[in-house]
Amino acid sequence: MRALWLENNKIDLRDIDQPRKQDEVLIKIRKAGICSTDLELVKGYYPYTGALGHEFVGEVVRAGDASWIGQRVVGDINAVCGACEQCLNGRPTHCENRTVLGIVNRDGVFAEFTQLPIANLHKVPASVSDEMAVFTEPLAAALEIQEQVHIKPTDRVLLVGAGRLGQLIAQTLALTGCDLRVVARHTRQRELLSARGIRIIAEEDVERWRWDVVVEATGSPSGFALARQAIRPRGTLVLKSTYKGEMSVNFSSIVVDEVNIVGSRCGPFAPALRLMESKQVDPTVLIDDEFSLEDGVKAFERAAQAGILKVLLTP
Amino acid sequence: MRALWLENNKIDLRDIDQPRKQDEVLIKIRKAGICSTDLELVKGYYPYTGALGHEFVGEVVRAGDASWIGQRVVGDINAVCGACEQCLNGRPTHCENRTVLGIVNRDGVFAEFTQLPIANLHKVPASVSDEMAVFTEPLAAALEIQEQVHIKPTDRVLLVGAGRLGQLIAQTLALTGCDLRVVARHTRQRELLSARGIRIIAEEDVERWRWDVVVEATGSPSGFALARQAIRPRGTLVLKSTYKGEMSVNFSSIVVDEVNIVGSRCGPFAPALRLMESKQVDPTVLIDDEFSLEDGVKAFERAAQAGILKVLLTP
Repeated sequence: MRALWLENNKIDLRDIDQPRKQDEVLIKIRKAGICSTDLELVKGYYPYTGALGHEFVGEVVRAGDASWIGQRVVGDINAVCGACEQCLNGRPTHCENRTVLGIVNRDGVFAEFTQLPIANLHKVPASVSDEMAVFTEPLAAALEIQEQVHIKPTDRVLLVGAGRLGQLIAQTLALTGCDLRVVARHTRQRELLSARGIRIIAEEDVERWRWDVVVEATGSPSGFALARQAIRPRGTLVLKSTYKGEMSVNFSSIVVDEVNIVGSRCGPFAPALRLMESKQVDPTVLIDDEFSLEDGVKAFERAAQAGILKVLLTP
Repeated sequence: MRALWLENNKIDLRDIDQPRKQDEVLIKIRKAGICSTDLELVKGYYPYTGALGHEFVGEVVRAGDASWIGQRVVGDINAVCGACEQCLNGRPTHCENRTVLGIVNRDGVFAEFTQLPIANLHKVPASVSDEMAVFTEPLAAALEIQEQVHIKPTDRVLLVGAGRLGQLIAQTLALTGCDLRVVARHTRQRELLSARGIRIIAEEDVERWRWDVVVEATGSPSGFALARQAIRPRGTLVLKSTYKGEMSVNFSSIVVDEVNIVGSRCGPFAPALRLMESKQVDPTVLIDDEFSLEDGVKAFERAAQAGILKVLLTP
């Protein structure tokens, strides 16, 4: 089958064997999305060789339980052992033996087919289109913030960064009724937020020590610095991005201000699907472009352009 | 009056004016304790000029409300405005206009007298000796961990560092019934812990990803590194020390492991006094030496020696 392959910081389209694990479900990809992590993997953020991609919606074409065949599905990207200390203590996304779709030891979804354990699958409601469903994974990641941190309707919340993930975070944070402001660099990012009634704040207007919760979604040292100075004493600073290499931070000030820093990664799929089914969020406004899998290399070039939000691939 | 004065990274004993603020209470110092922050201030951790010291027990000798005169007291070290956003939102120790006894714009307690707002004072129960009461401030700082983090009796808790503050943290954490292990560098530190039935763990035996809560009380990059690798995914890493300058940290791994980092500083005095009154903790085992205020410079030299825990000063 055709697949977009990453090796030595280069991607190319090639023919690879179709997945064949009999204890997993075979899924025909309907749509896949390029995310910032994919772009970072190409740059070498984490060593990975294999088919890229982890955001997808597909159709089950082979399964041990025949009732799944023909179902439209999305899938948790962490395939877990179920037996390690993390799995046994209710933290399967932190499984010590996990493989991760298109990221760690498991070929990804920029291909004609993919495979996952049946436990990873979620059926997509009929009213949720492929264009929506392909956002289930990043929307779940946005919701992980509310899984970890109690966002109160009276909280003053600052979101730094309004890119691919930032837009989804803005949409889900707004649902809490909190007093949300977003620092957004690009005009189109600001327009998308304004269209939903989400308020923008200029970087220079971000007051120090003001915000109960700050979400850092830029992954840059300057974004972190802005987030750090914005958070109020005893406030919560959520890190919702990847950071290249090490970052130098004044930890004494973290102690003096008793700041709470929370790292945040993969989230729950079921509420993400519910919010799309009930039209509470609309991720499709992020779609900038669509390419066929055969034009996957071009799609990556497009996704890497400044200000571009979501680029989709169709096999 | 006589006072131990810090100026340009040097301490000396000198005569200064007795405190004279009429809206504050005048306290005659009975005993004071040297803490790591005092040693760091001398090294220039934070710019401060004035009388040093913030751990004390004293006797009220002048007060607007005469019923306080003659009372044996300890005092919160943050003197606050009561009007800023932090004060009005229940975070007085984070007052934006605070002065801090012997640390920020307020002469400290290594002197014959000190002054504080009456709201800062706590009466010392008769059964709590001066030698105990002088530990109220650091014991309160230890208890701040339990103010911020819910330590469950079933939690596996690692404490890295068993110095002045570490010993008190060990004693208070042990009260929760949690499965506590302490990394302690010096023989005497280990002996004090063992005498209370608190378990030691060698640094090389600290398993990665094992601990629900890790308290870092060394203030060193190596202590932080040990704490960081010990914490389990979604675990809580409490920073309970001062860190010199900036520290370089891999924040992507904080995100991937969804670690929660909590800075922790000053704590509540009332429960600290209760725990000493009920003999649940005994800080006096930390006392290594006592000096008169006149020998204050010698006392600092003694306190700075490796493995020395508490050195007291008596005016």
